[in-house]
Order: sequence, then structure tokens, then C-alpha cells
Amino acid sequence: MKKIVIFGVGLIGGSAALAFKKARPGVQIVGMGRTQQSLQTALDLGVIDLASCDIAEALQEADMLLIAAPVAQTPAILATIQPHLNMNTVITDAGSTKGDVLTAARKVLGDQFSQFVGGHPIAGAEKSGVTAAMADLFLGKTVVLTPSPETKPEAVAMVEQFWTGCGAKLSAMSAQTHDSIFAAVSHLPHLLAFALVHEIAARADAEQLFSFAASGFRDFTRIAGSHPEMWRDISLANKNAILNELTAYQAELSMLKKLIELEDGQALEALFEQASTARNAWAKSKS
Amino acid sequence: MKKIVIFGVGLIGGSAALAFKKARPGVQIVGMGRTQQSLQTALDLGVIDLASCDIAEALQEADMLLIAAPVAQTPAILATIQPHLNMNTVITDAGSTKGDVLTAARKVLGDQFSQFVGGHPIAGAEKSGVTAAMADLFLGKTVVLTPSPETKPEAVAMVEQFWTGCGAKLSAMSAQTHDSIFAAVSHLPHLLAFALVHEIAARADAEQLFSFAASGFRDFTRIAGSHPEMWRDISLANKNAILNELTAYQAELSMLKKLIELEDGQALEALFEQASTARNAWAKSKS
Repeated sequence: MKKIVIFGVGLIGGSAALAFKKARPGVQIVGMGRTQQSLQTALDLGVIDLASCDIAEALQEADMLLIAAPVAQTPAILATIQPHLNMNTVITDAGSTKGDVLTAARKVLGDQFSQFVGGHPIAGAEKSGVTAAMADLFLGKTVVLTPSPETKPEAVAMVEQFWTGCGAKLSAMSAQTHDSIFAAVSHLPHLLAFALVHEIAARADAEQLFSFAASGFRDFTRIAGSHPEMWRDISLANKNAILNELTAYQAELSMLKKLIELEDGQALEALFEQASTARNAWAKSKS
Repeated sequence: MKKIVIFGVGLIGGSAALAFKKARPGVQIVGMGRTQQSLQTALDLGVIDLASCDIAEALQEADMLLIAAPVAQTPAILATIQPHLNMNTVITDAGSTKGDVLTAARKVLGDQFSQFVGGHPIAGAEKSGVTAAMADLFLGKTVVLTPSPETKPEAVAMVEQFWTGCGAKLSAMSAQTHDSIFAAVSHLPHLLAFALVHEIAARADAEQLFSFAASGFRDFTRIAGSHPEMWRDISLANKNAILNELTAYQAELSMLKKLIELEDGQALEALFEQASTARNAWAKSKS
């Protein structure tokens, strides 16, 4: 790989640029994006080699294009790229949902959909923007790729090579499997945390309540501090899987409520025990 | 204060012993408890000065007794103490719920209920047991006291003096206010986290789901690793306030689900924005 274009040089795009540049110092990284200012910052920080506002020029002889912009912008970005896309450039993305991205790519790219590989790096940080970018963000983290039957094997191989260069591990699955897994282990917890804080903040005695919230509340609600626009997009893009998760969770809560109403201490303790054992085993397996 | 008896020398009781001893090296700390083994460990670690299994002897000339055992054991512990309780010993506790504790104390102690001060130190740690005890656990943390109209002012003053000596700040409110505040900011989040992990762990594809869970899931579910017996007791002891919180949260979830069904991006973003702003402002105020 000699030239890589990154559309959206924020935390994810910027970190990927830094990580791959570290592994392959010879590669040229061209940044593109919505705002000239963040591209200038990326240039000043040495995250990218060149900032471009000319998509035709940027794509010339590019080996790969990584779209790392908010996921709702992906269809518009693909439409901008499509007229200038040659047969050898591989396109991939870093969006948190994959079904919607693949539908858009299939529609916009036509025959060239075979050059597109859906991707989702499972990494993030409290802060966003290129100033938060770091070369080790993906070290040991998983990147999920969701190739379709039409996808060229060479395209998949190139994207794998890119993320391996960034220090990540790879995992492949269908877009549908990806979206249902992440609805359960990521999207649902985010919505539950947003809902808790929203519900408490709306009360007349919110200030008093917050003043007694302690470390358990802090950890539980950390993800409620996440980016509202990003989570709006995810909620809409993965609507069906998220609704299924919310329905299953509501049933679980009704069951738990029933046990408390019935004062069934034995069943409550068993439920907490199962959850606690599973959670601690998981944490141990990840450490 | 010359002699303090601590019933239940685990994380909370042990840390209180270490903290108060540091502030007042002259005080004698007598440990009592269910198991001889943990008392022996507490002795070996220098957390207590004396381990006793004779309640009459332990209470002789004791200025204060702190009950720091699991909250469901409080009525039985009070009944054990009552026959040997002189008029000058102040009793307090460290339970996470207060309405049930006050009801039990009023019933068991009769006239001597005026010597009882309900308390709840808002502090904890990942680990439990006396080996996890530390002298600075309460430093800068809040201890809520819930005195009743019958409580002697001297009793409240002594308990305040104890916790101030441990480095804590004090806050006073009714047991009912305490229980409704903590139902919202502590008990509800714990139940929500237990419910999420329990629901996911019960699925056929639990292993695959857990393997893709990342840092957001880790923080959100940390409190689902908490002690099952303790949370069974809290769920039963604070039943009514917790059921109210679950009902309010279910309504919030139904509303959020409706917004996703309607694909109301504007309302979703507004909800996430309000939650995110409130959460980040809270975290900043606590740092």
C-alpha cells in the first residue's frame, strides 16, 4: 500500500492514520473531511501527510479509502466518491452499524460494490476528535469485517492487511450478525444508561439525587456521556435489532419486578448470583 | 470515646476500625462477628484490638457499637445485643437501607431506641472482606445519618464524631428520604445491570455475545459483579421505593422505544443530548 485516503480524520480515522504510518512509514496518508479546520489540525499534528478537498485528485492511485465519518453521512460520502472511483481502489468504513452501510454501498456503488468491505473497529475513547487520536488505539482490539458474497477477496485481504498493520485482530461475520450482536452488547447498554440519566435529570429533585450518586452510578452512566448525534444515527440505523433488544430487556425487567413484588428472596439471589458469576467470569477472560 | 465495638469486621467495619484508630490511637476496638475466622484475620492484620464472642463482656463500658454486617442480619444482631445494652452505649449501623433498620431497632430496643442512630456510609470497593479494609475508605466520602424524633442528641453527636474522625462528611435526612434517594441513584442502576447480564448470559449465543463486549459494557456492568446476598436483602428491604423506580424506568424505556419505532431522530438526539449534558456536568461536579 502506497496511498491511503481517510475520509473523516477524527479519533478513529486519525488513530488509524497514526497506527498504520507507524507500521509502514513509507505510505502516504491523505485526509479529507467536512471541515477544513480539523484537517488543518490533523496536518499540524502530523497525523496526515496531505489534506485534500479534491476527491478526484485524492483518489488517484489510492490503494484504499477508509470512511471514518459519522455513520449517517456514509451514503452521501459514497455518492461523492463514486464518480471518481477507479477499479483498483478498495473502500472500507469504520461505522458502528453495518446493515445500513452495506445497503447504501450496494445501491450507490453498483458493480463496484465488490470493492467495498464493511468494517467496525471495536475501539473508542472518552474523547473524540483528531486531537484525541493515538497510534495504539487499536492495539489488541478487534476489528469486525462484514464482507458480502460479491466482495472481491483481494479487497478483503487489503483491509485485513491495513488493520493488522494497526495492531488489531480481525473477525469476520455477516452484517446482520454484526448488527444483532452489537445491539445486545453495545447499543442496548448505551440506551439504558441514557434513559436512566434522562429520567433522573428530568425530576424536580434531580440536584439532590445527583448529589448522592456515587461510584456505581459513575461507571454505570459513563456511556450516557457519549455523543448524541452518533447515538441518534445508531438508533435509527440499527432500529430493528435494537427494538428486539429493548423488548427482551423489558420482559426481563418485568420478571425482576415480579420477584420483588412477591418478595421471592431465593429467586432474586439466584438471579443476582448468575449475573454476578457471568459478569466476573467475563471480566476475568478479558483481563 | 475509649471503647468501640464493631459487629461485622468486613470491608466497611474493618475500614472504619482502621480509620478511627488512626485518628484516635488510644481507643480500644473490639470486633465481633458471625465467623471466628474473619475475626482472627482482623486481629492478625491489626484491624481490631480484641476479638470477642461474649456480647455482655464486649458491651461493658462500650461508648459505641457499630453494626456493619449484611443488613438482613440487623434485627437478629439487635436482639442479641438488647439484653446487655446499658444506658450509655450508642448504637449505629452501616446498612444500605434505613427504613427497615429503624423499624427493627424501634421494635427490638424499646425505650433504648433513643440510643440508636441509623447510618449509611456511601463508600465501597470492588473487593469485600477485612483483607480489603483500608484506613482511607471514607476520606471525603459522605455518611448519611437518619436520626428519629426520639433519638438523643448526644447519640447523634457521638456518631458524627466517629465518622468525622474517619475522615467522612455528614448528611442528615429521614429514613424515608434516604431510601427513596438511594432507590433512584444506587438500587435501580444495580438492578438494571444485573438484569442486563442475566438476560444476555441466559441466551444460547451468550459466549459469542460476551466475546464482542467492550469497554462500555465493562463499565456499565461493573456493579452486576456485586454481592448477590447483599442485593437480595436490599431489594426486599427497600421494596416499595425500588418498585416505584422500576415503574418510572419502564415508562422511560417505553417512551424511548416509541421514538425509535417512529424514527424520530430529532427527539432521540434531544433525549441523548439532555442525558449526556446532565451526566457530564455531574461527573465534573464530582471530580
